[in-house]
Amino acid sequence: MSFDVLQDKIRGMKNPTVAGLDARIEYVPEHIRRAAFEEYGAGRKGAAEAVWQFNRELIDALCDIVPAVKPQSAYYENLGWQGMEVLERTIRYAKEKGLFVIADIKRGDIGSTAAAYAEGWLSGTSIEGETFPAFDADCVTLNGYMGSDSIKPFLEAAKEGDKCVFVLVKTSNPGSGELQDIVAGDRLVYQAMGDLNERIARGTEGKYGYTMAGAVTGATYPSDIRALRRRLEHTFFLVPGYGAQGGKAEDVQYAFDKYGHGAIVNSSRGIMCAWQKTGGDGHGFAQAARSAALAMRDDIRQFVTVV
Amino acid sequence: MSFDVLQDKIRGMKNPTVAGLDARIEYVPEHIRRAAFEEYGAGRKGAAEAVWQFNRELIDALCDIVPAVKPQSAYYENLGWQGMEVLERTIRYAKEKGLFVIADIKRGDIGSTAAAYAEGWLSGTSIEGETFPAFDADCVTLNGYMGSDSIKPFLEAAKEGDKCVFVLVKTSNPGSGELQDIVAGDRLVYQAMGDLNERIARGTEGKYGYTMAGAVTGATYPSDIRALRRRLEHTFFLVPGYGAQGGKAEDVQYAFDKYGHGAIVNSSRGIMCAWQKTGGDGHGFAQAARSAALAMRDDIRQFVTVV
Repeated sequence: MSFDVLQDKIRGMKNPTVAGLDARIEYVPEHIRRAAFEEYGAGRKGAAEAVWQFNRELIDALCDIVPAVKPQSAYYENLGWQGMEVLERTIRYAKEKGLFVIADIKRGDIGSTAAAYAEGWLSGTSIEGETFPAFDADCVTLNGYMGSDSIKPFLEAAKEGDKCVFVLVKTSNPGSGELQDIVAGDRLVYQAMGDLNERIARGTEGKYGYTMAGAVTGATYPSDIRALRRRLEHTFFLVPGYGAQGGKAEDVQYAFDKYGHGAIVNSSRGIMCAWQKTGGDGHGFAQAARSAALAMRDDIRQFVTVV
Repeated sequence: MSFDVLQDKIRGMKNPTVAGLDARIEYVPEHIRRAAFEEYGAGRKGAAEAVWQFNRELIDALCDIVPAVKPQSAYYENLGWQGMEVLERTIRYAKEKGLFVIADIKRGDIGSTAAAYAEGWLSGTSIEGETFPAFDADCVTLNGYMGSDSIKPFLEAAKEGDKCVFVLVKTSNPGSGELQDIVAGDRLVYQAMGDLNERIARGTEGKYGYTMAGAVTGATYPSDIRALRRRLEHTFFLVPGYGAQGGKAEDVQYAFDKYGHGAIVNSSRGIMCAWQKTGGDGHGFAQAARSAALAMRDDIRQFVTVV
């Protein structure tokens, strides 16, 4: 089962972290932007090609030290179809380099529509009897507000390729509590979401004991993570919010089980934009990202030992 | 304010309905598919071009009798970036034909990411100081599970172009109650979502009394719609689930206020796939869609009079 693939990669590197690939054009160093704008024009195509160069060099710099990358779809949709083409290219290249790719898309819709999304992002679309992969990630993030029929088509699609999903449970943003922390009987709404999600995926546990439907649990709410780890013992956690959003290594440690398994921590701007803090002109961005990724790994290793 | 634009269009046609543009390749008549596969190959590009031909003729056949169309992003993402390029083309063409375009994307993310989505779908992205529109719809659907900071960036972007949004409140699918109907004190979760959404948009009411943040309320749960209409008097409703999903005209009437304002009812397969019920070979698909759209309008007119 599918979190086995990710957990094996994490064990291989003793590094339970994932690097976001969420490039706004402003994050791309000037020399890359200039070159792309000169070749493709200072519009969507030029911006998309600049992001591609940036991503490619980041992937090259990170692929032997981090097990996974997480491109956020918003930063590609932002550039229209040219951005989506670069997202496809980025996912393909990251996989070629051995990285596990989590497409951060937070989709969720009625069953027939969820099936279409699942084809596009995981299993491929059938055209005249032949299957054509589209974005073809290893894993996607989902929003389960619409219920189990919005999640199940993704699980079906994921099974075909030993893939997996993460469903939003307790998110890292300031307003996450407005709906998620509402008291509903003897539990909170996000706990109900977590319970529902673990139930939907029951029976899909792999060799590490985790189902194929993981949960997003923000680093910015450490006490909630601790309670969720106890509550959802078969659910793998994706923990955003480390670094730029304020989450610390001592906070995220509670997402892991006693073997240091069952979770992966994300950092996006902290790695991608590390070059902006070096005082350099951006030519050393890949090395800065690598150093930041190693620093994050070592920071988390102070609190978490992956067995 | 922005629902004024849609409400004015609805009043002009006395038709409070929206046609979905959610083409799976199987829905496209054979003569269009054949021609596209011959010219572009039987892969993603050929399928996307077939969908484009289908959409274009549907838009031509519907633009003088329905005020709005609603392309569902899943059916374009499904075909990778080539699908997204056709989605852009479809939105642009529908707007040229005077249609109001609701991009059904159900996005929702942390503030900075929500801002990137809002640029991509509503206000355009800034590159070197110039703004480039991307998908450029008039309106989008959103998922508010993450709270107000996941919605507000869209409202900001929408204000720039007199646009608007719909946030999921009570959805039309069978599993919608699993999270949405959980009892939370003196209300249900979906009511809390609706209350939160109306509060976020307070002060943006237009000449009809509706804020720029509408709500999705499924036709398949008519008693919930009736209660929501009373509860959220400043919220415009998008009502999916009519037709193929089982919702009837007598059910959707409760979404409207006493002037027949404040709501729009969607049908997708019932219009797009009307040709499949004619016994024909698909050459008459546009006429069949037009007849189905007129029948839907007249069906709803039995219960709702738009003043």
